[in-house]
Amino acid sequence: MLSDLAQQGPASYFPRPETPVTFNFDQGLAAEETFPIADLQRVMTTVLDRDRGRALEYVSLGYDAERDKILYPPTQGELALGYPGLRAEVARWIGRTQGVAGLDADHVILTSGSVQAIALAVSALLNPGEGALVEKATFPYAMRFMQMRGADVRAVEIDEHGLVPDSLVQRLGELERDGVRPKLLYVIPTFQLPTCVVMPEDRRRRLLEIAEEWNLVVLEDSIYADLRYGGEPVPSLLSLDTGGRVLQSHGFSKNLAPGLRLGWISAAPALVRGLAAVRQDLGVSQWTSRAMELFLVEGLLDPHIAAANQVYRRKRDVAVTAVRRHCGDLVTFDVPDGGFYLWLRMGDDVDWVKAQHEAAERGVFCRPGERFLGERDGQAFLRLAYSHAADDEIERGIAVLGEAITSNVR
Amino acid sequence: MLSDLAQQGPASYFPRPETPVTFNFDQGLAAEETFPIADLQRVMTTVLDRDRGRALEYVSLGYDAERDKILYPPTQGELALGYPGLRAEVARWIGRTQGVAGLDADHVILTSGSVQAIALAVSALLNPGEGALVEKATFPYAMRFMQMRGADVRAVEIDEHGLVPDSLVQRLGELERDGVRPKLLYVIPTFQLPTCVVMPEDRRRRLLEIAEEWNLVVLEDSIYADLRYGGEPVPSLLSLDTGGRVLQSHGFSKNLAPGLRLGWISAAPALVRGLAAVRQDLGVSQWTSRAMELFLVEGLLDPHIAAANQVYRRKRDVAVTAVRRHCGDLVTFDVPDGGFYLWLRMGDDVDWVKAQHEAAERGVFCRPGERFLGERDGQAFLRLAYSHAADDEIERGIAVLGEAITSNVR
Repeated sequence: MLSDLAQQGPASYFPRPETPVTFNFDQGLAAEETFPIADLQRVMTTVLDRDRGRALEYVSLGYDAERDKILYPPTQGELALGYPGLRAEVARWIGRTQGVAGLDADHVILTSGSVQAIALAVSALLNPGEGALVEKATFPYAMRFMQMRGADVRAVEIDEHGLVPDSLVQRLGELERDGVRPKLLYVIPTFQLPTCVVMPEDRRRRLLEIAEEWNLVVLEDSIYADLRYGGEPVPSLLSLDTGGRVLQSHGFSKNLAPGLRLGWISAAPALVRGLAAVRQDLGVSQWTSRAMELFLVEGLLDPHIAAANQVYRRKRDVAVTAVRRHCGDLVTFDVPDGGFYLWLRMGDDVDWVKAQHEAAERGVFCRPGERFLGERDGQAFLRLAYSHAADDEIERGIAVLGEAITSNVR
Repeated sequence: MLSDLAQQGPASYFPRPETPVTFNFDQGLAAEETFPIADLQRVMTTVLDRDRGRALEYVSLGYDAERDKILYPPTQGELALGYPGLRAEVARWIGRTQGVAGLDADHVILTSGSVQAIALAVSALLNPGEGALVEKATFPYAMRFMQMRGADVRAVEIDEHGLVPDSLVQRLGELERDGVRPKLLYVIPTFQLPTCVVMPEDRRRRLLEIAEEWNLVVLEDSIYADLRYGGEPVPSLLSLDTGGRVLQSHGFSKNLAPGLRLGWISAAPALVRGLAAVRQDLGVSQWTSRAMELFLVEGLLDPHIAAANQVYRRKRDVAVTAVRRHCGDLVTFDVPDGGFYLWLRMGDDVDWVKAQHEAAERGVFCRPGERFLGERDGQAFLRLAYSHAADDEIERGIAVLGEAITSNVR
């Protein structure tokens, strides 16, 4: 009875492991010890004390505080955009932290995490058969949404500086030759998933030039961008954009807590309204939105991120030291300046299939590189998430992983 | 730059009224005075005190309470279905209140309100070009989602007992003759939107027979079903279904508070997994889900609904009396046994366009019937939502409406 879409299944179906997981380096989870539980409880309670029942209604723009009543129903677009107070605060936060002038609530739509933000962008921009471009290794959900939409998806090469502009131009030329209109580029310029590389400013500028030449819309996934604990910040694509062609997806799932289920897209108002038009729900919780508005107004987000980044830096250092100690030359990687992951390249001598099996049997789970690359590409990679485990677990788990690798050299 | 979908715009675009709204009878909003604010604050706070950071993560099935750690990542399907504790409680609640045996967590997927539930069902069941059936006057979002999916949508007649089975058979025959495979029937059997009629049990049984004969899946929208304050309950389609072909959408937006943004579909596990597969977000908030699990475990939902229904009965009586007093014979309607609305039929003598304009100028807004009927159909209807306004506002607003109507008789 199911449709073709439903039969294709979800973006990435992960079977339940057959062996118990002792060391979970698989998921990109924020560290629970960083969650500001007391503050979140307080803001959720405070906004109901303050705003009472209207904070539990659908979003209503026409609320008149003086008369304490809803003056007119929200237009459907307003309802789909989300509570204006949080949209304004998010715009202010982006403006301040990224140096973008002129942003206001009209530039922001609230979404159920940044995954829904990506889905809305895909649906609002791509017609079936139109061309989309992604980095060669990328976030599987973005790919899946493009395929669900019937888009023609092409993969652009990446190197240690992220997306390769020449490769982008090449793919655009191929689409043109194939009679396909290129429309959307999805890119993760800062702490790219899964490689953790950062695109330098000159390459970002070049990317935007190409987008201008080809009339591309650029979806900048910045979910990891503020989890920086080393190196120098690089301007976001949104901040460098002069053509109104960048949509930036972001949210609170990595820098705060995924349980809030709050993300957003920041873009030119006409694009934002387009996203609202394809929405297939009535928007995010106004209660949670008002609570996060208060969280931002109280100035709690930036100090929280700064404190969390200290934790992630420490975990990264533990992980880097452990991989070097236990895997030696059999594994190579770059030390990331931020984010949640090490992107490990297995030496050609390693029988990675056997090593992976042995590691799993001993309770160590990382995410195989092919989950991001789509195909194996002749080279074995491993994404190791150090963000969630305790320091001693990182050390002990990587020791087990190292044994599995060193004992499976061909 | 926008896709065709985005350019079509949302389900129903309501322009902002040009005149201030004094009396808002337009939206189907739950009454704010019924919201259990203190209990909601308490359960949200309690579950974080109890479950700490893991309640703020993505949904994780593999949590081991004894070792206080996540044992394995959730499979994507599990993540998309939502927190199993609330799914189990919702299944138990449906089982108890509707008399359905054998329901468990596997029969429930949590959604961002019941609107997303409807969208997921449409996407998981209909291929482009396949046939969908709706009641002639229906929920505009359901229609819109079917159109976005490229379905061939046909409207079935309704009368004072809801969907007319003979008309359904006729439409199915038409689809067959047109070479279109009929797949999905969307129906609101209890307190139908916008007419508020209730389908009696014999007609429900006949509907299910037809569904069996034609291998239709039936999406039963039950969002208003427990807002009953008169008459006798009628068994739900889900409870009468023996073929595993009914999906029931429901949620907390009408019987509790829309700000929770929590709905669900209850159906056979294979269908539920199909819905999870087409999801374009990572599911609903685990925090809110755990809080609502506690709300249900504490037995707070049923007494809340019973108390809220007292409020709605009172408001209905105020509205009914006021319409009879101020509109006289120029408006006819059936007194509903539940829900939020009066479905008013304008007498043929009334110049409704002028009356509507005059009412709006004096601050009274109802929802014109054509928003639901798609076309005018020669007959003017008006949906008057009495659920949200205060008693004296209902009386005063309907007095103004009555003046606008009585002074515009041709």
